[in-house]
Amino acid sequence: MKIKIVVPIITNVFNNEIIREANQFKSQDTEVEVVNLDKGTASIESNYDEILAGPDIVKKVKKAEEDGFDGVFIDCFGDPAVDAAREVVDIPVVGGFQPAVLTASLLCKKWSVVTVLKSVVPMIQDLCRKTGIMDNVASIRDIDTPVLELQDKKVMQSRLLMQIEKAINDDGAQGIVLGCTGMLGLAQDLQNEVSKKNVYIPVIDPTAAAIGFLEQLHRSKISHSKLTYQRPVEKERNFE
Amino acid sequence: MKIKIVVPIITNVFNNEIIREANQFKSQDTEVEVVNLDKGTASIESNYDEILAGPDIVKKVKKAEEDGFDGVFIDCFGDPAVDAAREVVDIPVVGGFQPAVLTASLLCKKWSVVTVLKSVVPMIQDLCRKTGIMDNVASIRDIDTPVLELQDKKVMQSRLLMQIEKAINDDGAQGIVLGCTGMLGLAQDLQNEVSKKNVYIPVIDPTAAAIGFLEQLHRSKISHSKLTYQRPVEKERNFE
Amino acid sequence: MKIKIVVPIITNVFNNEIIREANQFKSQDTEVEVVNLDKGTASIESNYDEILAGPDIVKKVKKAEEDGFDGVFIDCFGDPAVDAAREVVDIPVVGGFQPAVLTASLLCKKWSVVTVLKSVVPMIQDLCRKTGIMDNVASIRDIDTPVLELQDKKVMQSRLLMQIEKAINDDGAQGIVLGCTGMLGLAQDLQNEVSKKNVYIPVIDPTAAAIGFLEQLHRSKISHSKLTYQRPVEKERNFE
Amino acid sequence: MKIKIVVPIITNVFNNEIIREANQFKSQDTEVEVVNLDKGTASIESNYDEILAGPDIVKKVKKAEEDGFDGVFIDCFGDPAVDAAREVVDIPVVGGFQPAVLTASLLCKKWSVVTVLKSVVPMIQDLCRKTGIMDNVASIRDIDTPVLELQDKKVMQSRLLMQIEKAINDDGAQGIVLGCTGMLGLAQDLQNEVSKKNVYIPVIDPTAAAIGFLEQLHRSKISHSKLTYQRPVEKERNFE
Amino acid sequence: MKIKIVVPIITNVFNNEIIREANQFKSQDTEVEVVNLDKGTASIESNYDEILAGPDIVKKVKKAEEDGFDGVFIDCFGDPAVDAAREVVDIPVVGGFQPAVLTASLLCKKWSVVTVLKSVVPMIQDLCRKTGIMDNVASIRDIDTPVLELQDKKVMQSRLLMQIEKAINDDGAQGIVLGCTGMLGLAQDLQNEVSKKNVYIPVIDPTAAAIGFLEQLHRSKISHSKLTYQRPVEKERNFE
Amino acid sequence: MKIKIVVPIITNVFNNEIIREANQFKSQDTEVEVVNLDKGTASIESNYDEILAGPDIVKKVKKAEEDGFDGVFIDCFGDPAVDAAREVVDIPVVGGFQPAVLTASLLCKKWSVVTVLKSVVPMIQDLCRKTGIMDNVASIRDIDTPVLELQDKKVMQSRLLMQIEKAINDDGAQGIVLGCTGMLGLAQDLQNEVSKKNVYIPVIDPTAAAIGFLEQLHRSKISHSKLTYQRPVEKERNFE
Repeated sequence: MKIKIVVPIITNVFNNEIIREANQFKSQDTEVEVVNLDKGTASIESNYDEILAGPDIVKKVKKAEEDGFDGVFIDCFGDPAVDAAREVVDIPVVGGFQPAVLTASLLCKKWSVVTVLKSVVPMIQDLCRKTGIMDNVASIRDIDTPVLELQDKKVMQSRLLMQIEKAINDDGAQGIVLGCTGMLGLAQDLQNEVSKKNVYIPVIDPTAAAIGFLEQLHRSKISHSKLTYQRPVEKERNFE
Repeated sequence: MKIKIVVPIITNVFNNEIIREANQFKSQDTEVEVVNLDKGTASIESNYDEILAGPDIVKKVKKAEEDGFDGVFIDCFGDPAVDAAREVVDIPVVGGFQPAVLTASLLCKKWSVVTVLKSVVPMIQDLCRKTGIMDNVASIRDIDTPVLELQDKKVMQSRLLMQIEKAINDDGAQGIVLGCTGMLGLAQDLQNEVSKKNVYIPVIDPTAAAIGFLEQLHRSKISHSKLTYQRPVEKERNFE
Repeated sequence: MKIKIVVPIITNVFNNEIIREANQFKSQDTEVEVVNLDKGTASIESNYDEILAGPDIVKKVKKAEEDGFDGVFIDCFGDPAVDAAREVVDIPVVGGFQPAVLTASLLCKKWSVVTVLKSVVPMIQDLCRKTGIMDNVASIRDIDTPVLELQDKKVMQSRLLMQIEKAINDDGAQGIVLGCTGMLGLAQDLQNEVSKKNVYIPVIDPTAAAIGFLEQLHRSKISHSKLTYQRPVEKERNFE
Repeated sequence: MKIKIVVPIITNVFNNEIIREANQFKSQDTEVEVVNLDKGTASIESNYDEILAGPDIVKKVKKAEEDGFDGVFIDCFGDPAVDAAREVVDIPVVGGFQPAVLTASLLCKKWSVVTVLKSVVPMIQDLCRKTGIMDNVASIRDIDTPVLELQDKKVMQSRLLMQIEKAINDDGAQGIVLGCTGMLGLAQDLQNEVSKKNVYIPVIDPTAAAIGFLEQLHRSKISHSKLTYQRPVEKERNFE
Repeated sequence: MKIKIVVPIITNVFNNEIIREANQFKSQDTEVEVVNLDKGTASIESNYDEILAGPDIVKKVKKAEEDGFDGVFIDCFGDPAVDAAREVVDIPVVGGFQPAVLTASLLCKKWSVVTVLKSVVPMIQDLCRKTGIMDNVASIRDIDTPVLELQDKKVMQSRLLMQIEKAINDDGAQGIVLGCTGMLGLAQDLQNEVSKKNVYIPVIDPTAAAIGFLEQLHRSKISHSKLTYQRPVEKERNFE
Repeated sequence: MKIKIVVPIITNVFNNEIIREANQFKSQDTEVEVVNLDKGTASIESNYDEILAGPDIVKKVKKAEEDGFDGVFIDCFGDPAVDAAREVVDIPVVGGFQPAVLTASLLCKKWSVVTVLKSVVPMIQDLCRKTGIMDNVASIRDIDTPVLELQDKKVMQSRLLMQIEKAINDDGAQGIVLGCTGMLGLAQDLQNEVSKKNVYIPVIDPTAAAIGFLEQLHRSKISHSKLTYQRPVEKERNFE
């Protein structure tokens, strides 16, 4: 299958790493291609950023379907414009949040999200409620680090480790979801590190979960419900 | 106080009626002013429409604060861009949904929403979950009528009445929320009509609830939490 | 509109301050009048106190309707006898709890109540469950101070501040509800104090919220559902 | 053990039947004694009735403890004044609601309550929420019959049967709770009747459940938590 | 009535103490008899242990019914094979979990379970969810002690006390459920100990609650719903 | 990867079809192998059947790990012995239920399960609660057909279609989960059939979802949490 990864920011600094990450987790017969936004923001860390990125995300998803892609990963943990994009295309569209937390809900009874900034926590609270899996949330923690500073892997890893251990010891987490799709290349290391001090604890990489879900949907020949995501009717729109 | 009503569509056909409605429910010392969008859609009936309207809604809310308004009503039951708008201003911002359902939760234990179209039902399900009041929802019904056809009041009223009665008799609703801010000028009549056949049942007009909440917040000198809606940090944005 | 404030205790020590508080938050065209109970207790801090106050509260609410008042505020955070009072009158009746927590649910996703005594915490747990907004409760804390000792403002303020900060830092609260209607004249100061150390965090005064809701309901010409609060049928009652 | 049954109405018309019912379900070494209210109403069918009955109920419960009773059953499905009564005594106190629905939650996954009147349904909704067992409620139905007309057993039985069958067939109920303690002497017959047309379905008599719980608590030497139901402090009360 | 206690392990080391415990809490006219498993494990501390014990538990319950017993207590807090056993017999069957937590839900609003080992905590989380009483759970704690080491009463008691106090002070518990049926002979002492430092707090012994529920069900002539626990149809089974 | 499918019944009548189904949905580099039970029942339609199948299911899963398989699918919608099996192995183990409903929760907001028999409905209610996704359940319906009669595809298909349409029209389902892993080879046809009369509605085949999840977990190198599913300690077990 052909997957289009819409990286919903106006910079391509993450692209190479994203392709590497996706290639690591995809199956042999899957191809991935990355695209950035023309209009939007340098990173998504607020509802405001999501609103600005929204229109171009939807445009890129539409384009992907027209170009024959079989599925789209909107590569952000906030699932920006996922609902709208699902309305305008038939191919499966996922963001970073839903695949990751649904996978976590399979692997343990209580999991925690560790994300970048406090400003993002209420957005993730909303996503948890919307997805109907609040009962499984142990906590939502942050490492107090903006997306664009995630590139120092050492710092990111040690901060993640600290919050992951608090999630396990203080909040009752039995599994961990990395709460930003920019936390690349670390899930395996973190999993090993954490499991050394405890028993084995899964650390879920949202990119891996997203690619995995798209492949499963493609092979099962199913997509999102058009009763939930009905196709918008034609009418006057002076901005698309 | 001065309230700016952002009617988040690109047509002004509803404006006069909206002003009439708002004037009916506001207190003496409140002034209201209406503005439409420059870029967006003729009506909001899908997540796609919300995404397209989002950027200009936020711009209009920012402008309202700069122009000295004391509060903003984003005049749509889907609460489009409300979260983002709250991030960028300090004055209270409400949509049509939250004030109406929180008021309903004061007046009865189980209420139903009656909205325009089936396509909007899942969006309202999401809003109910996000607002944390799912326990109070009896049902979400629709009258199968697009927003732009709401101007035939007779038809709208009879369709609303039919669904309201089903909500009460079949779903256990004890109160009704009109699920579109375009359902103007009807709440009182519907309330009288419905109460004739039963005991008194409140029919909540989202415009009235929104204006009422803004006035209450203004007099109480409180606004939305900046822990929930943190101000977006400065960074590169090529589209605002 | 004319609002009757039923202060459901047998002492008038709070009355002047209550009137001052109400005047501060009401709109110009609203008049408020206060009445105490003839039979009841010096303060309400237990279910037992509520039971004793109940009959006279209902009597005072009935009287208010007969005397032409447009709404009643039963001035206690425990919402004592609110359900019963709503059954016997048509004009809107609110207590201190519901308006405050519904307002808090508009302004943030998770809020805490800070109340007077540990004995009151389970009563507030019940009210949260009954109102159907449990998902939004971060915590219920107390300042270990009986109602009748609230008159030392300095002490009250410093104890409130301590618990408010714990609620924010330890429990994830994004907003605060003052959990006793006797905590008068402090909401603004507390809000400023707390917001200095953090970003802006709303502190909700239950009196302000109650008055605001009554004004909104009056202007919207709606009241509580008579399906929820059905009028009691005539029958033998030897004590009313 | 010695159980005092407080029948919280001002008439003794149900007393004999209540004693017969209690005797049928109690163990050999248990004695029951019945008392009515001096001040209150002829039946409890509203929050208003509960408020009027409250003070004398608490008085009767206190008296029972002073007189050496080991437990009290406040014989009404609305659990009137149960919380307050628990505050002022140490011996176990139960109403009709909690024992019945907790027993139902042991015997099946989804149960329905069938009560007397529509006016009581919202009161039972509140009790379900307060007791924290909403997930197990299939529905709350009524037979549209006032308490004081329950004495025509034939009529009551046929109306109950009709609603019980609807609960099972339409609402997914797997068990039934009789929603009024005045529905005496019928549980066994109804259970047989209903089970004839289906497989065996339990019909829970609130009197039997209340007596059973009191005996269990007495033998286990446990009572309600004084952290939940703290003893009211001394202070001025001019009405007790 | 005659109660069969199925102690679902292959050792009889607990039997005498179990009989003593049951005799202490049963009513005069109740007889109890104990049986162990022929095939199973020395203790139940995992889902794996439950699976191995399952078939013989069901066999023993069937035998009890054939032998004329009136009820069965499967004497383990994990409620192993309770659902299956209820399908194959008509007499009431309870485990240790459901009776204890439903009793706790009557006595306070928030309770904690204190169990043996961390490995059991997720199993109890599942039981709480299944029983539909999650809202009442303050926490699930453990004393880090395997079942077969519970025989040192001194150690067990001091560890329990420590966790009980944490549950009350840190988690908001108002009552305690002993989370292993092997925690015998301690409930009263713990209750006294804990209540000394606080007000009275109930400590629920699962054996007492189980016996109490069986007696109540027997006297009320009700049993589990056969709609919930339908009798398995005849078909090929090569292992029973 | 190599997947072992444990078909937890003592007959091999479904095996060929199961292999065909799995092959249809797996990726190229995945091999599947099927095994039946030596001891158990001809089909699983009750908790009793699950209890009897349990020990041999766990044995087969252990054997699969020893034989070098990378994942196990316990091929039954009731997820029998999944929890226990996860305790004794490190490789991912899934049943039919969890993968299917978590996939459904990605594709729509409300879904219904359509299963074989009424006796299975309460078992699926339990699984929904345990998995923490109750908010997303529209209904659980059955086609009143035992597992062993599913081989008449025509009958099965028409009965499924009828219940699916009721789920959509009466219960608000936006997606469908086939509630028995014996409902083979029909998901695509049903999806087409249903979507013809409506808009596109996904019909989820539990086999496809299970294989898809195992592949995703394998590629992501993650497995179930050993904090949730701790390895059973060594002790006396006379039956394994």
